[in-house]
Amino acid sequence: MFNRSLLSLPTKLCNLQIRRSSSSRCLLSVTQEDGIKNIILDDQKTRNSLSMSMMNQLIDEIKRDENDKSLRAIVLSSTGAIFSAGHNLKELYFPDKSYEEVKSIFEKCHELINCVIHSPVPIISKVDGLAAAAGLQLVASCDIVVCSDKSTFSTPGSSFGIFCSTPGIALRVIPRMKSSFMLLTGLPITADEALRIGLVSNVVSKEELDKETERICNAIKSKSRVVISFGKKFYYKQLSMGLNDAYIEGSKIMADNLQLEDGQEGIKSFIEKRKPVWRNE
Amino acid sequence: MFNRSLLSLPTKLCNLQIRRSSSSRCLLSVTQEDGIKNIILDDQKTRNSLSMSMMNQLIDEIKRDENDKSLRAIVLSSTGAIFSAGHNLKELYFPDKSYEEVKSIFEKCHELINCVIHSPVPIISKVDGLAAAAGLQLVASCDIVVCSDKSTFSTPGSSFGIFCSTPGIALRVIPRMKSSFMLLTGLPITADEALRIGLVSNVVSKEELDKETERICNAIKSKSRVVISFGKKFYYKQLSMGLNDAYIEGSKIMADNLQLEDGQEGIKSFIEKRKPVWRNE
Amino acid sequence: MFNRSLLSLPTKLCNLQIRRSSSSRCLLSVTQEDGIKNIILDDQKTRNSLSMSMMNQLIDEIKRDENDKSLRAIVLSSTGAIFSAGHNLKELYFPDKSYEEVKSIFEKCHELINCVIHSPVPIISKVDGLAAAAGLQLVASCDIVVCSDKSTFSTPGSSFGIFCSTPGIALRVIPRMKSSFMLLTGLPITADEALRIGLVSNVVSKEELDKETERICNAIKSKSRVVISFGKKFYYKQLSMGLNDAYIEGSKIMADNLQLEDGQEGIKSFIEKRKPVWRNE
Repeated sequence: MFNRSLLSLPTKLCNLQIRRSSSSRCLLSVTQEDGIKNIILDDQKTRNSLSMSMMNQLIDEIKRDENDKSLRAIVLSSTGAIFSAGHNLKELYFPDKSYEEVKSIFEKCHELINCVIHSPVPIISKVDGLAAAAGLQLVASCDIVVCSDKSTFSTPGSSFGIFCSTPGIALRVIPRMKSSFMLLTGLPITADEALRIGLVSNVVSKEELDKETERICNAIKSKSRVVISFGKKFYYKQLSMGLNDAYIEGSKIMADNLQLEDGQEGIKSFIEKRKPVWRNE
Repeated sequence: MFNRSLLSLPTKLCNLQIRRSSSSRCLLSVTQEDGIKNIILDDQKTRNSLSMSMMNQLIDEIKRDENDKSLRAIVLSSTGAIFSAGHNLKELYFPDKSYEEVKSIFEKCHELINCVIHSPVPIISKVDGLAAAAGLQLVASCDIVVCSDKSTFSTPGSSFGIFCSTPGIALRVIPRMKSSFMLLTGLPITADEALRIGLVSNVVSKEELDKETERICNAIKSKSRVVISFGKKFYYKQLSMGLNDAYIEGSKIMADNLQLEDGQEGIKSFIEKRKPVWRNE
Repeated sequence: MFNRSLLSLPTKLCNLQIRRSSSSRCLLSVTQEDGIKNIILDDQKTRNSLSMSMMNQLIDEIKRDENDKSLRAIVLSSTGAIFSAGHNLKELYFPDKSYEEVKSIFEKCHELINCVIHSPVPIISKVDGLAAAAGLQLVASCDIVVCSDKSTFSTPGSSFGIFCSTPGIALRVIPRMKSSFMLLTGLPITADEALRIGLVSNVVSKEELDKETERICNAIKSKSRVVISFGKKFYYKQLSMGLNDAYIEGSKIMADNLQLEDGQEGIKSFIEKRKPVWRNE
């Protein structure tokens, strides 16, 4: 049975499981408290780069206990002034790597993005600093992004000979005219501009960043875990469907949602004018 | 033959036709004047909920006389502080309803949304207050939305155990990062934020709301009805087409538009430096 | 071999090649200097309309020397207060033209848009004034748009009996609620609003317009031409792909990018902590 008291303690969980190769240092600092798992990128000497090790550790941490009903949301953040500078360029040097090895790095990044999208709990990026290239791709693929007003965002890959083609896919979340600008010029945008174009959900001062993240987490925690998970899954599915097909399937999804025990409890508590008591599963 | 003087009078048109079942009260207040039909949701005791009756009455009113050439635009608004709170939760309680009955409620809502999209005249939401859940879905599916600066918008379904999956489909009109935020947290956004993210076309003070709506209606009325109708139809069609295919069909659509009598009148009046005289059919 | 000194001189290049029919006046003013080709619409008496001649000349100029490695970006601008008012309505009058002739005008415009999208170098619109109808379509199809704070944008076609259906396709770059507003009402939007909705990349004062354009061009010129070209091509391709398919192809594209000589030079120069020296081909 799941040991709740263990998870409630803010413990550093980076353990043997994620040290898959002998060369892997622990690049993450992880704590879990009151249903919120904080995954903190902690590899400042590589500017929190998404090295193969970092991506593997992120995937492991995001998936770990993902079906545990006490886990309600994951918050990604970083130590230092750089959220993440993107891929580790040293891993992309061909004389040291084959074509297949290099490609596998981007496939791993794709796996990481899918892992974020398919996580049953909301994943929130809490950004304070620069998110660049694949670092920005990770941020833009989260369900929610809050950032400090000093944060900046860029896709400078072409300055290093490698166009940010895969980050550009994640940048579909912003207007086309702005993603093409960022990708072709490599110039950074500010937090305020990121808010204006819909790259981030909210911008606050550095001092308010934790409080704003907590406000969002509390809003999520007040709902049923199973309802949020059910809704998140269809949300991403419908985005790639035609409008009419999405509504046809959506009608069924709504009825299915209402058949969940927590769906019925929600309606019942509304009719009975009381607070709902969620089973969360 | 169409009796123009009748429609010009601001009469309450909610009549026997839309009282389809014996239990249906008249939930709408409807007037028509100078080519503009005002459909006012008027069921404050259910917070203008989109009950089955309300949706049926809305569909009937939107479709009524839709091909009458004197009808130029439809304005949706509400009495009270709540534009619409969404579906009537009491109708979604399973012990009282079968799975198929519950699903049919969302299918009816899909029918309502299609009815808005396929209406030959522009449909404008005039919002002053809260539009939530399916109420927001209806708003976001209109061609144009104006709102007062005190209006708010939310998708709080998961607070009642039912994730706003179908409203989420309509929220494709806003940036992905913002719709996921609204759906997962249930937190409301302000009118200013709604403007920033493209959920509404314009925001004005409560006092200016009628005037701004009139300005928009006048702009529409100065054009040919048949040209607007022709253009609206292709506008929604092309949105789901690939860019190249859309342009291939679009070239044909432009030439077809010019073959309309009012298409030719438009060009002719431009060349002859005079105001066009539209046939509107 | 390519004569670099010739292109470096700011010469008016509108020459015999683009005077394809005896009736074609030269409607463009073209200069090229330091890798930037400036194509200036210069037909103020038709409000820089996209007449058949203008579109043919634009296509010729955009394609001319497009594979010359010294060409790094194209800037589109206009003389006078109107960037472009759109199609030349006089060419759309049916008594003078057959259905096929009229349709071919929109097909030519589609060819022009494709020409912009498929150009191997970034194409930047520098707008100072009104861009309307197909003029706006051209602007919205560029990779980057900068405009002065006095610029305005509209799709007023329906006022002349012809709904801006093809400009509406290009307006997918802005929020749906705003493009439907612009198309159905014909009302203009300001530069500030254009910035807010993502129609333009940046807004500056008229005095700063050249400097801002230069800043963008310099950012592009600091990268490898071949990498920018490679990246631009996949950027537009992935926009029409499903998210997962885009990432699968994107992983391959990133590895392919790194196999380019300039891809390797970028990584090598980063590791060796020196400035890259691009081959640009």
